[in-house]
Amino acid sequence: MEAFSDGVFAIAITLLILEISVPESAFEDLWSGIADQWPSYLAYVTSFLTIGGIWAAHHGIFRRLAYANKRLMLLNLLLLMAVSFLPFPTKLMAEAIHDEGAARTSVIFYGATLLVISLLLSALWGSVSLDRDVLRPDVSDDEIKRVALTTTPNIGLYIGAIALAIFAPRIAIFGYLVVAIVALLRMGGDSTPARTPTRP
Amino acid sequence: MEAFSDGVFAIAITLLILEISVPESAFEDLWSGIADQWPSYLAYVTSFLTIGGIWAAHHGIFRRLAYANKRLMLLNLLLLMAVSFLPFPTKLMAEAIHDEGAARTSVIFYGATLLVISLLLSALWGSVSLDRDVLRPDVSDDEIKRVALTTTPNIGLYIGAIALAIFAPRIAIFGYLVVAIVALLRMGGDSTPARTPTRP
Amino acid sequence: MEAFSDGVFAIAITLLILEISVPESAFEDLWSGIADQWPSYLAYVTSFLTIGGIWAAHHGIFRRLAYANKRLMLLNLLLLMAVSFLPFPTKLMAEAIHDEGAARTSVIFYGATLLVISLLLSALWGSVSLDRDVLRPDVSDDEIKRVALTTTPNIGLYIGAIALAIFAPRIAIFGYLVVAIVALLRMGGDSTPARTPTRP
Amino acid sequence: MEAFSDGVFAIAITLLILEISVPESAFEDLWSGIADQWPSYLAYVTSFLTIGGIWAAHHGIFRRLAYANKRLMLLNLLLLMAVSFLPFPTKLMAEAIHDEGAARTSVIFYGATLLVISLLLSALWGSVSLDRDVLRPDVSDDEIKRVALTTTPNIGLYIGAIALAIFAPRIAIFGYLVVAIVALLRMGGDSTPARTPTRP
Repeated sequence: MEAFSDGVFAIAITLLILEISVPESAFEDLWSGIADQWPSYLAYVTSFLTIGGIWAAHHGIFRRLAYANKRLMLLNLLLLMAVSFLPFPTKLMAEAIHDEGAARTSVIFYGATLLVISLLLSALWGSVSLDRDVLRPDVSDDEIKRVALTTTPNIGLYIGAIALAIFAPRIAIFGYLVVAIVALLRMGGDSTPARTPTRP
Repeated sequence: MEAFSDGVFAIAITLLILEISVPESAFEDLWSGIADQWPSYLAYVTSFLTIGGIWAAHHGIFRRLAYANKRLMLLNLLLLMAVSFLPFPTKLMAEAIHDEGAARTSVIFYGATLLVISLLLSALWGSVSLDRDVLRPDVSDDEIKRVALTTTPNIGLYIGAIALAIFAPRIAIFGYLVVAIVALLRMGGDSTPARTPTRP
Repeated sequence: MEAFSDGVFAIAITLLILEISVPESAFEDLWSGIADQWPSYLAYVTSFLTIGGIWAAHHGIFRRLAYANKRLMLLNLLLLMAVSFLPFPTKLMAEAIHDEGAARTSVIFYGATLLVISLLLSALWGSVSLDRDVLRPDVSDDEIKRVALTTTPNIGLYIGAIALAIFAPRIAIFGYLVVAIVALLRMGGDSTPARTPTRP
Repeated sequence: MEAFSDGVFAIAITLLILEISVPESAFEDLWSGIADQWPSYLAYVTSFLTIGGIWAAHHGIFRRLAYANKRLMLLNLLLLMAVSFLPFPTKLMAEAIHDEGAARTSVIFYGATLLVISLLLSALWGSVSLDRDVLRPDVSDDEIKRVALTTTPNIGLYIGAIALAIFAPRIAIFGYLVVAIVALLRMGGDSTPARTPTRP
């Protein structure tokens, strides 16, 4: 199941670039034309780093599992469905940024998608914590709390950023970006992340 | 072979989102514009959950195999071809839903694709059951019957939903969705699904 | 390296569907509109089964390797480049089929791509045969000949089908399809294909 | 983490073909129409071989790792983000090549992306060298130097090719292609590359 999930993450993260292009009318002054696409780059980087962080958290959960039960497989599928959905609000936000009213809507819609992804990720780990049988026996209570602490706070941050989007949509995008970067840096606080088995 | 199949499932499931977009003419009232795409979301969720269920059933078959013979590889390739085809009727159904006559046709065409996928999945397991040599020795007769019971009934349900599509195409889409959800929930009835080997 | 190659095969095979669509002008009589896309379906099935066969042959080569040397990695990368290229002539052939002159050109161009893929696959196995050190010690001379016999004859068949395309392009497409199907059926002649290690 | 990275490389390399197409207006003389797309083929081959070389170097680094720490995961994510970005400047360069001013800009922009990818790859290996704990114990000092020597010189070559692009953009593209080919051939200088564990 992890191989399948990794595939979905890798594809969702790579499809993001397909939506970016410079119109031929901008070829006369192409440096400006390239620079004018900044909302697309900002949306691309934000979505890429967000999915990267989600993948790392997801990987952190799955390498602690002994097996996957019914509830986990369903929650995981819902999480993948939300992650695969992200290229749509990403593109919409990049297109709508120059239109005052549409910008607000698109930034809130994008943030709502990130919030749903965060909620599903927390639900996934919550479901694991409630049913310790699915965990590998060497996973300690401390580790369970620590993983919860890296996945949970994003929910509050996304709610805050969505509220900010009502008043200042463009600034809110940077809020989403900061949440993604902080999540990636906090992930690094784990002293032995992703210890893959040393092949003998 | 399973890695290759997983890749095809993961890509087919992720490509579905590429077809969804909001036209720039809807930016004036973007919440309405986003809401107007509901046929696309419905088609996306239905196809995503359907492929998710097919993948889980496929995974359930392949982890019981000791090796894959000629017939299995060919049936598997046909199944992957049908699954990869699904984004086309998915998109068509989302586009045609607002046109009375085209809606009926597109919903039947979509259902026919789901029916073919179900038939191929049943044929795959049927082929395995006929030639027990390909199964791992620890797979019991009971397990063989149980897997058949989770893959077979969808065929009847799809025939019913296609018949419904002739009279009420829009309701039939929800029929397809319900079939997908029920298949996912029944999959969970298996008490030890997807037991991945605990890495020591 | 095989995981990377499998990924490229899986993606190339799945992208093929993205090019197929029914124009909205055909919604009045959608069954005709769907039927009118037959060149796209024919091209899709032909390319899908061809890549499926190439993947199976590729897998047959790589599971006999002990390690991959410089020449193998380069030949493999060229093979992947040719396989990834196939969606382009596939789409072109589907579009040009209704135009007398363009049909001939596009079918020859498509066949030339298949010929290049076949030549690279044969070169890959030829390179392995010349340097038996890269093979696993349990691979016999008989096996080496047998794999060569399943990869080599396609070259002649493709040259024949391309020659046919000069006079009867539409019939030549079925020629390509027949070559793909025959390659898949012959692959099955191997009595123990794809024996994956039974996980204990 | 390597499986996820391999997925991103495989997808980025395969998406490149989606941007190439022959306009229907060229169907009257389709051989010319196909030939006229030469900038697309050149850009496709250059990007494909470049990503292929990056993948091989990346694989060479990861198979020497015992585990991945915080810094490595972040650098790896940035590298994947730059590689996933490449289809955008690839398409832009292919489109802009016939426009004198736009050609220069697009070729420099493309080269700058390659330079960033090279810098990130060197930073990844530099980070590994600084913290030998993450390496498998059997990796010698000699090997560390040798890997650095295969990843570092491209930086200088890309700076040179970008400088050339200011005066002769079209020739600079061939410069990028030569850098990719040389990188692939040098990679082959390693006498036992990609020794995958012989499955017993």
